Amino acid sequence: MECRLYYWAVPFRGDFIRLILEDAGIKYQEHSPEEIIEIKSQPIKNQLFPVMAPPFFHDLQNDLFFNQMPAIVNYISHKLGYVTNDIIKDTLGLKLLLDCNDILAEITNLNGSQMWTHDDWKEFRFNRLKRWMEIFEEFGKRYGLSSDSGTMLGTENITFVDLATYAVFGTMTRCIPELKNDLNINSPNISALCDRIYARKNISLYLKEKQELWGDLYCGGQIEESIRKMISLDK
Amino acid sequence: MECRLYYWAVPFRGDFIRLILEDAGIKYQEHSPEEIIEIKSQPIKNQLFPVMAPPFFHDLQNDLFFNQMPAIVNYISHKLGYVTNDIIKDTLGLKLLLDCNDILAEITNLNGSQMWTHDDWKEFRFNRLKRWMEIFEEFGKRYGLSSDSGTMLGTENITFVDLATYAVFGTMTRCIPELKNDLNINSPNISALCDRIYARKNISLYLKEKQELWGDLYCGGQIEESIRKMISLDK
Repeated sequence: MECRLYYWAVPFRGDFIRLILEDAGIKYQEHSPEEIIEIKSQPIKNQLFPVMAPPFFHDLQNDLFFNQMPAIVNYISHKLGYVTNDIIKDTLGLKLLLDCNDILAEITNLNGSQMWTHDDWKEFRFNRLKRWMEIFEEFGKRYGLSSDSGTMLGTENITFVDLATYAVFGTMTRCIPELKNDLNINSPNISALCDRIYARKNISLYLKEKQELWGDLYCGGQIEESIRKMISLDK
Repeated sequence: MECRLYYWAVPFRGDFIRLILEDAGIKYQEHSPEEIIEIKSQPIKNQLFPVMAPPFFHDLQNDLFFNQMPAIVNYISHKLGYVTNDIIKDTLGLKLLLDCNDILAEITNLNGSQMWTHDDWKEFRFNRLKRWMEIFEEFGKRYGLSSDSGTMLGTENITFVDLATYAVFGTMTRCIPELKNDLNINSPNISALCDRIYARKNISLYLKEKQELWGDLYCGGQIEESIRKMISLDK
């Protein structure tokens, strides 16, 4: 696969795509914020493909340019062998991937539409986020995570769901280590899965390289500042 | 297929699922708001399947219970023959379905998180919504809508993308007729597609029946009142 990714220089939604490409050993080209803004701002008629917002993905072999993170993850997973090809398992995987997308929207207070107030943040962290973590934990328990027999969640036969689970909870707790204890308490098996994903050779190399470039940058912008301010108020 | 749908008694996200089932002539059972709230409020461990919010879908034959509208649409479309089984076409279809989900979140001011102010509404209606309509129009032009040759958008070989396009723009302009002219101007071919979908026998019967029950109810609640107030201020 020869491809290009257009996303901001932060992990957040981009790492759902990058982690699959990295794990599969696929080389890809990334683009500057200026190029992304140019595509995003063009009149729809002039766009290479009609899109609202990044991540954008370009499969050069098929000259297929499109957006929407879960659609990109689904496509490259089919191409690179990260689906199960079982309609029920892949449906449950898509459900979890869409849950991930909702979690990203929620932790950024609806994609950064407003800065957090501490009351709203506490309601999110100690109720909604806790519940999201429990959803993944319970899902893993019922579908084989603890045995690592690899039906849906587990690293034996890795799928996009494992990598998406790392991209949502592994990234969150790596970049905001104050939340690691929340994950350990609400989702001990998911926390252990994230550690196993991190230990995969290509993933580990990629994340260490990015850590040097980006430090603990998470979603970026004013909303990341707001999240970190809330975390400091929680203490 | 023997199945159950758990969604509020409004079209909004529910009709993305109902329209496929209706078009395919599948009988399904719906559930009361009380039952939905009960499932939604349970501790995650006690839930039949770990879920945050409706729509919930239960395939009784496979005893598969799950949520997330795009995952449900994808699953029933595979089961009932509303996908193309071409990875590229179905990927673009999923991209458009996720666009639909974003449009629903946006027209309700991020799923009803706040009531609309008129300035924000005008920015939405005359910029974002216009752009979303243009995305679908342009997509249709490039992928065969105008010729109705049915690659992705068109009623000759109907797919979930056609029904989702009706569910987003047909429902919006049927329930809020003041927006029909916006669609006619920004997306004339999509507007015509919606009329053709409406004319399908099972769809037409279903929508007329619901019209008698629900009138022009769209997403319900305070946010629907807010949308209608904004529309009246636009005049």
